[in-house]
Amino acid sequence: MEEYIIQKLIDITGKENAKVTIAQRLAYSYDATANFQAMPDLVLSPANMGEIQQIVKTCSEYRIPIISRGSGTNLAAGTVPNAGGVILLFNRMNRVLDFDEENLTITVQPGVVTQHINELVEPKGLFYPPDPSSMKISTIGGNVSENSGGLRGLKYGVTRDYVKGLSVVLPNGEILKTGGKLTKDVAGYDLTSLFVGSEGTIGVITEITLGLIPTPQTKQTLLVFYDQLETAAQTVSSIIAAKVVPTTLEFMDKGTIENVEDYMKIGLPTDCEAMLLIELDGDMQTVGKEMQLVLKICKEHGAKSTQLAQSEEEALQLSTARRVALSVLARKRPTTILEDATVPRSEIANMVKEIQRIADKYNLMIFTFGHAGDGNLHPTCLTDARDKEEMERVEAAFSEIFDSALRLGGTITGEHGVGEMKAPYLEWKIGESGIEVMKGIKQSIDPLNIMNPGKIFAKDRKQRVVVHS
Amino acid sequence: MEEYIIQKLIDITGKENAKVTIAQRLAYSYDATANFQAMPDLVLSPANMGEIQQIVKTCSEYRIPIISRGSGTNLAAGTVPNAGGVILLFNRMNRVLDFDEENLTITVQPGVVTQHINELVEPKGLFYPPDPSSMKISTIGGNVSENSGGLRGLKYGVTRDYVKGLSVVLPNGEILKTGGKLTKDVAGYDLTSLFVGSEGTIGVITEITLGLIPTPQTKQTLLVFYDQLETAAQTVSSIIAAKVVPTTLEFMDKGTIENVEDYMKIGLPTDCEAMLLIELDGDMQTVGKEMQLVLKICKEHGAKSTQLAQSEEEALQLSTARRVALSVLARKRPTTILEDATVPRSEIANMVKEIQRIADKYNLMIFTFGHAGDGNLHPTCLTDARDKEEMERVEAAFSEIFDSALRLGGTITGEHGVGEMKAPYLEWKIGESGIEVMKGIKQSIDPLNIMNPGKIFAKDRKQRVVVHS
Repeated sequence: MEEYIIQKLIDITGKENAKVTIAQRLAYSYDATANFQAMPDLVLSPANMGEIQQIVKTCSEYRIPIISRGSGTNLAAGTVPNAGGVILLFNRMNRVLDFDEENLTITVQPGVVTQHINELVEPKGLFYPPDPSSMKISTIGGNVSENSGGLRGLKYGVTRDYVKGLSVVLPNGEILKTGGKLTKDVAGYDLTSLFVGSEGTIGVITEITLGLIPTPQTKQTLLVFYDQLETAAQTVSSIIAAKVVPTTLEFMDKGTIENVEDYMKIGLPTDCEAMLLIELDGDMQTVGKEMQLVLKICKEHGAKSTQLAQSEEEALQLSTARRVALSVLARKRPTTILEDATVPRSEIANMVKEIQRIADKYNLMIFTFGHAGDGNLHPTCLTDARDKEEMERVEAAFSEIFDSALRLGGTITGEHGVGEMKAPYLEWKIGESGIEVMKGIKQSIDPLNIMNPGKIFAKDRKQRVVVHS
Repeated sequence: MEEYIIQKLIDITGKENAKVTIAQRLAYSYDATANFQAMPDLVLSPANMGEIQQIVKTCSEYRIPIISRGSGTNLAAGTVPNAGGVILLFNRMNRVLDFDEENLTITVQPGVVTQHINELVEPKGLFYPPDPSSMKISTIGGNVSENSGGLRGLKYGVTRDYVKGLSVVLPNGEILKTGGKLTKDVAGYDLTSLFVGSEGTIGVITEITLGLIPTPQTKQTLLVFYDQLETAAQTVSSIIAAKVVPTTLEFMDKGTIENVEDYMKIGLPTDCEAMLLIELDGDMQTVGKEMQLVLKICKEHGAKSTQLAQSEEEALQLSTARRVALSVLARKRPTTILEDATVPRSEIANMVKEIQRIADKYNLMIFTFGHAGDGNLHPTCLTDARDKEEMERVEAAFSEIFDSALRLGGTITGEHGVGEMKAPYLEWKIGESGIEVMKGIKQSIDPLNIMNPGKIFAKDRKQRVVVHS
């Protein structure tokens, strides 16, 4: 990027809101994805939609990439500036614009930290359900761009289910407003849903209207341990088949349990093969009745032991056992690669066994935990990015894991997004015609390809090497 | 359309599955929308996806419009073949392909009548919530193409919320498969949501995977009558503010009540200004408690009288009072025009008063009923399409109604779709940039404009004539 263009861009936000030195820019050269890094030319913190329009128009004029970035917790290299350009930060656009208790909506700027939304609405008896593990630091703008999931997805869905309206600065600098404080709107194509999960590739999101729901009256938390993977997985299906939909229905494998117990020392049995964390919420009486039914189902499927939280503190401790899984595992080796292969709920046991088989085949340390209720698993590989030979095995293993997920009717990514990392695999899921349709949409909205280029769409397709008999 | 092309197309389905005579084609020259009619050149009933691919490829070769049609209940002239071409019927593609109780999904062909889905899954304790008034005759393919709403939308959402995967024949004849039996999937842009509600303009939907939920244990039904519109509307907001989300929260104005009582003779008080139909569902105890709270709120807002159904038969009678509204009103004059202007819930009273003001201004008979809980009203004009002068007043009045809805933060269509009828108004809602983005998507997927041309996008924009001070 030439100096005069950089200066032109800095003039828009003022130099106090621009990061230009190498040391400053280095901090924005990577996100939470191992093994991806590239330097941005400039990092800007615009104050409002008008400044973003000016930045976008300038970038459009000089064909400069724009990468919108929240807190950089992305796990698919979605915010790594692999073609250089300008990183847009939203740290100055972090205000709540409107909280409407009558229509159960909240309108916010993209820089608001997701957890702050719940802190604001909970005292009013309201609730924003999507809870990605990163919610204490990730921004709502990032969550919307990635269509983030979370632990409550089984009962309450994902980010897209709560986005009712958006303001977007389009690649040509024009403003697009979609949806509104409306429950129903069929005025043309669903642009709101298109922008949710579009990973910054077709516009810069500047305002977000979210739907809220009443807070459930109560919650109960249960841990269940199994000697066999299959019986844990069968429990998951049987609970749903009994018409009980838990808020949370999480899974941890043996290795994850051992590591968590080693760290937390709360008495988790380490001689079992699988653990389920089950949370029910709703009306007090209903939850009580449903929990009895869940306990019965767990026992029928041969649960080794169960632990029902008797207090809020204990409930927190039990759910923390699952929430810390990633950070506990991450301590073991220099590099952690967290994936999110997802399958239909009925295929959970098959998928976990596939992951174990593949880990053995490539001689890798892969532990699995995740959202069993919605089939969204997190096989987590503990490795060392400096070991080239091992990293080749890691890549081969994950290729095979994606392949297995797809053969079981699943997808390559349940909640992390495609980014740069999974772009070579996207065609495996959606086929050549799907890629063509998506590329057509991208080109029609962003013909100069300035919005987060190199994401979602890969330069080269990946061969599906596994031969199926 | 030249004879040899027609013959080529007939050869694909066989002549027993083609309608060619004028009398046969006439039946497909209109849908449920008053005042729109155009003759198709041919009507075909393909047997499977392969035949649809052949039809689409042939139509693409000769630039012939393709209009997918379910049962023709569309209310926005969405299936009128205004540029001629081929009507595709799905009466031979009406099979249930898969019912998966473990993953709570059902996969169907587009020709399945929506109500049949519930008849099939209900004995298993499952439930497909979207319930457009036409559900006894409309097809799921039509519902998906229009993103149909219904009376249970407040609590359970609309069709899009239940579509998990689609198979589509694209305008180039290729097959696109989106989503799957998955709760979470972020592999690229959300094409499933894009095709839901796309009104047949970007492809032919050939398979649909729907999510199901457990059937609520019980339901209670209440009618409430008010002397004032405002107090009825305030009740709606207060119920939601009390964190109760009814399944159904419907509204009828004075004129609608009078007409329904005149027809049904079930003792509805005709000396009131507004009626609410409130249905709660869920766990027995919860519903009981919530109904007590709802009754208290109704009384606090000065409800004139309430009627709580004491039996299933009575509940059915009360809800029928609302469900028959349209057909009862339609008897009054030769032509019925049913609109679906939608506003945020908090603006219901303002919107109903606007509709009454506009009806008076243009000296028209407009009654209003609809889904108060989600702000989706149905102002219904009883008129006579043969009276040109009156029809001009009708058009002017609806222009003003759309304008009022938008000024109140609403939309031009909540659940009927844009079709041909509302296309001139679409820009009012989504702006010039919204039209450009939508047109870009349409052109990128259907560059020859063979898929339901003349729908969603208007030849001419409509001037917004109302001057706001």
